[in-house]
Amino acid sequence: MFKRLLLTGTAALFLIGAAPITQQGGATQASPQEVLDAAPASAWMTVSPDDLVVMTLADGHQVTYQLAPDFAPVHVANIRQLVRSGYFDGASILRVQDAYVVQWGRPDEDKTEAKGINPTPPAEYEFALPSGFKALPYRDAYAEQAGHVKSWPVASDGHTAWLIHCYGMIGVARDVAPDTGSGTQLYTAIGHAPRHLDRNLAVVGRVINGMEFLTDRPRGTEELGFYKDDSQRIKIVSAKMAADLPPAERPSFQVMDSDSPAFAAWIKARANRSGAFFVRPAGAVDICNAQAPVRTAQ
Amino acid sequence: MFKRLLLTGTAALFLIGAAPITQQGGATQASPQEVLDAAPASAWMTVSPDDLVVMTLADGHQVTYQLAPDFAPVHVANIRQLVRSGYFDGASILRVQDAYVVQWGRPDEDKTEAKGINPTPPAEYEFALPSGFKALPYRDAYAEQAGHVKSWPVASDGHTAWLIHCYGMIGVARDVAPDTGSGTQLYTAIGHAPRHLDRNLAVVGRVINGMEFLTDRPRGTEELGFYKDDSQRIKIVSAKMAADLPPAERPSFQVMDSDSPAFAAWIKARANRSGAFFVRPAGAVDICNAQAPVRTAQ
Repeated sequence: MFKRLLLTGTAALFLIGAAPITQQGGATQASPQEVLDAAPASAWMTVSPDDLVVMTLADGHQVTYQLAPDFAPVHVANIRQLVRSGYFDGASILRVQDAYVVQWGRPDEDKTEAKGINPTPPAEYEFALPSGFKALPYRDAYAEQAGHVKSWPVASDGHTAWLIHCYGMIGVARDVAPDTGSGTQLYTAIGHAPRHLDRNLAVVGRVINGMEFLTDRPRGTEELGFYKDDSQRIKIVSAKMAADLPPAERPSFQVMDSDSPAFAAWIKARANRSGAFFVRPAGAVDICNAQAPVRTAQ
Repeated sequence: MFKRLLLTGTAALFLIGAAPITQQGGATQASPQEVLDAAPASAWMTVSPDDLVVMTLADGHQVTYQLAPDFAPVHVANIRQLVRSGYFDGASILRVQDAYVVQWGRPDEDKTEAKGINPTPPAEYEFALPSGFKALPYRDAYAEQAGHVKSWPVASDGHTAWLIHCYGMIGVARDVAPDTGSGTQLYTAIGHAPRHLDRNLAVVGRVINGMEFLTDRPRGTEELGFYKDDSQRIKIVSAKMAADLPPAERPSFQVMDSDSPAFAAWIKARANRSGAFFVRPAGAVDICNAQAPVRTAQ
């Protein structure tokens, strides 16, 4: 919205822009980008290639997503198995509903068998509050607390905790009964965080690169944004675990460690934007505007 | 994320889907869609054609947006004048930054004169808290209160108030100095609400139809998602005030009245999703998941 101004996006999926240092309240406040630029290598964690799925679309674009085995292990085991057995090779983007979700997998009429998976995994919608949970020092609109566990966005009522449906987070589609989602169809959030879905579906990962190749697709013409048929859908040529790719083709990403001092400084900078542009820092940031920064491995 | 389930989207721009009534806590809880379907005609306000802008893109798609003269009168007067003087006829979509904004107007190299406007309107970022403000009964992550004034999303610190940068809300682009945005370039939010922009830019309206024809565009390849040049941009063939169109071409929309009992029931239903699908209602809804429903005039 700036005629030509440097500014970082709301989702931290792509690190761009920079802003000058300015004086505020007598103290020099770094911008979010300056905090990232100054962060030591130790503040960045390389994502395991066993947790990375590289999905190639028929138009040649790649979307890379990270699985969350610590939070939904049975669903994640299913997804790894589905990927390795080739289930998603030849699947499609099934649905793009504006301001809501992109969903992919095989359409109902495709009877390709999903081999070697647990067809009825446990719900995995919640888990015991992990000891490493770091709450943001700001209010959350939906939960008593929201913050991070191992750089994932997590909400908690003080007893249990759950992954949050922020922009780019991935969940497992299901039918009405809670145990009907095996991982054969996945979705990612593309609008304002649909937090009413939290604790109602299994959240299993997040898109960390190429999100724009899902969000720029035509919205589906059928109810809920489903595409009508294969003439509207784009194929997924292949989905591969990064660990199974030859080293030369293997992407590598780093996520900022939510336990690092640099991350805490980054949160503070996100809540208190500096630079010549901002006349009124918000003084707060909500969890879905505080998703852990991602960069290519360095 | 539902293999084939009926569900409404997070943004209420498009009213779709329905859900069965179910028993919860002994009481019958209607779904958001059921509340809308049952709302009386008196719960809907027709948007004045003097506040509606119809923007036609070179691909034939139309995007219709509503101006907010009650909150940013000088900027809105500028935009009406720019529309009526043809300033946007032949302008372009300039920028699509994923998870952030779509921005339109004329590129820097286009020296078309903006005639008859106030070149330096006052900031209009905040206003005195209107007496008709209805706060949501839920926490807000950014402000002391968030709620609605005449069906617009408004936040307040108890003294002043401001329009919120929810998905689909429209603001006025500016340069670094606060008085540099006249309305010649506008943007709309396309990801998780960028609330850090609240009180930093003039919010002047919202997209109420055709949002998907802005969000489905290729993301810009340059810094901040700007398009490189006209070879990447799509033209805006025309922008017209609905009031100036022949009656047969004039679109007409209704927004649910945030002062109506039906609206209060709808908010409650959004916060407490019912139906066979939801195992765990959120018990809250944030302001940007509670944008006033829109429908074509009936």
